[in-house]
Amino acid sequence: MSIDLLQSKIRKLKCPIMVGLDPTPELIPPELLAECREQLGDSPEALAESYARFCGGILDALRKIIPAVKVQAACFDALGWQGVKAMQEILAYAKKLGYYVLLETMRTDVGHIAAITAKSVFGGVKCGGERLFPYPCDGLVVNGYLGSDGIRPYLPYLKGEDPKNLFVVVKSSNKSSAEVQDLVSGGRVIHTAMADLTLRWSTDLFGKCGYGEVGAVVGLSSADAIQALRKRYDTLFFLVPGYGAQGGVAKHAAYAFDRLGHGAVVCASRSIIGAWRELAGTDYPEAAVAAVEKMKKQLEAYVTVL
Amino acid sequence: MSIDLLQSKIRKLKCPIMVGLDPTPELIPPELLAECREQLGDSPEALAESYARFCGGILDALRKIIPAVKVQAACFDALGWQGVKAMQEILAYAKKLGYYVLLETMRTDVGHIAAITAKSVFGGVKCGGERLFPYPCDGLVVNGYLGSDGIRPYLPYLKGEDPKNLFVVVKSSNKSSAEVQDLVSGGRVIHTAMADLTLRWSTDLFGKCGYGEVGAVVGLSSADAIQALRKRYDTLFFLVPGYGAQGGVAKHAAYAFDRLGHGAVVCASRSIIGAWRELAGTDYPEAAVAAVEKMKKQLEAYVTVL
Repeated sequence: MSIDLLQSKIRKLKCPIMVGLDPTPELIPPELLAECREQLGDSPEALAESYARFCGGILDALRKIIPAVKVQAACFDALGWQGVKAMQEILAYAKKLGYYVLLETMRTDVGHIAAITAKSVFGGVKCGGERLFPYPCDGLVVNGYLGSDGIRPYLPYLKGEDPKNLFVVVKSSNKSSAEVQDLVSGGRVIHTAMADLTLRWSTDLFGKCGYGEVGAVVGLSSADAIQALRKRYDTLFFLVPGYGAQGGVAKHAAYAFDRLGHGAVVCASRSIIGAWRELAGTDYPEAAVAAVEKMKKQLEAYVTVL
Repeated sequence: MSIDLLQSKIRKLKCPIMVGLDPTPELIPPELLAECREQLGDSPEALAESYARFCGGILDALRKIIPAVKVQAACFDALGWQGVKAMQEILAYAKKLGYYVLLETMRTDVGHIAAITAKSVFGGVKCGGERLFPYPCDGLVVNGYLGSDGIRPYLPYLKGEDPKNLFVVVKSSNKSSAEVQDLVSGGRVIHTAMADLTLRWSTDLFGKCGYGEVGAVVGLSSADAIQALRKRYDTLFFLVPGYGAQGGVAKHAAYAFDRLGHGAVVCASRSIIGAWRELAGTDYPEAAVAAVEKMKKQLEAYVTVL
């Protein structure tokens, strides 16, 4: 099971950290960008190439330290097809290096469109007698606002030979998440209604680690929400974004874990991949390693992964 | 204003129809697909080329009949970068032919990620001293589950020199939309909470037509919901998907319009672009024209655009 893959990689490295690959022009070291522009001109190709090299460098540097990476599709989509091509290379490279790879598209589609995405990302595209995987990954982050129709097409791929998993946005890490997600309905807030659905979608899809293949994104915006959700949903694996640049801290992130230090992974993006901007005299892979080591220590003060 | 552009194009053609370009391998006529494979092999390039030619043919055929098209990103994304490249070509071609062009990505992102998408799609990417627009369009369909943070980055682009607009998914067209969207909170259902937010995001952003630049996606799944929403939100422009293949009918779609036949556009995808499968002996552009004419007549029984 894919959730077991994630949990076992976390346990092996004793490191419940997922690094987000969300490149933007500002996060690319100027000399790297200049090098790409020298070769390819001031073009989308050059920017895309700089993203690919930059993320490749991060992946090389962290491969024995962190278990998982999350690739933010919006950052690559923004460059047009050249960016998407770079993203496909990065996904394949991350898989090759042995990471658990999560693709974040944050889409919400009706059933027949979700089926197209599920088939492409999880099932592959049949071409010339072979099956191509444009977006090699282990899991996908989706949005459940459209209900079961939009999630069900993914479920058949969560079991079988090469199982995948899903994370559904339950409670996001941004401040305005409360506007819809915290509205109260029939004694529960909307984000627990979403968590209830997430749990339902996991029926019969539990890993050996005890957690469901359909996990929940639970942001670090509110410590209370994390505590309440962990108490209520002891079989939902939590993906916890919002650490570092978005202001989340280790003490609050710790609420997401069970007493064995399992069932959650904390995600940081800019604070890791952009750490070179704060650490003068280091190159960006070194700075990312230092930032991960620091974050790991911060988490270890509150969470021990057994 | 972009919403005025849409409304004026609808009024000019007396046709409140938006055709969805949601290509899938099954919707491409076999001879067209075979032609592309002959030239490019059984490859993602061939499939992408068949999508581009197919959508190009539809755009040519309908350009004097319908005012607007909607391009479903998921269908093109599914092929990898080759599909995205074809989508970029189709968006540019639709703009060139004079359509109001809506891009449907259905993403929900936190603020700093939404800012990246807004900048790319609406603001353009600076390269080599010029501004490139990877995804030429007039508007974008987004999801508001993350609240204002994820929408605000788009708002500056809704006014100024080349204004754009947004459609927020309020009530989707699929059956399970009720699971989250119809939950009751404080005397209102969640989808009206979303509509209230949508209205708030439109503050100061009203077109001459009287409708806001941030419109609402209101699917044809429930006639009651459309009626109630139109009664309550008389300044929200409604994008009404779910016609035809998804089961929606003209009588219900009519509830979305005001008494002048303004304020709404009805969207059909597969029933138009896939009409060739039902009409033996016609080529696919002819069949699409016939299907649009039929849908137009159905709507005219209930709606007159003044």
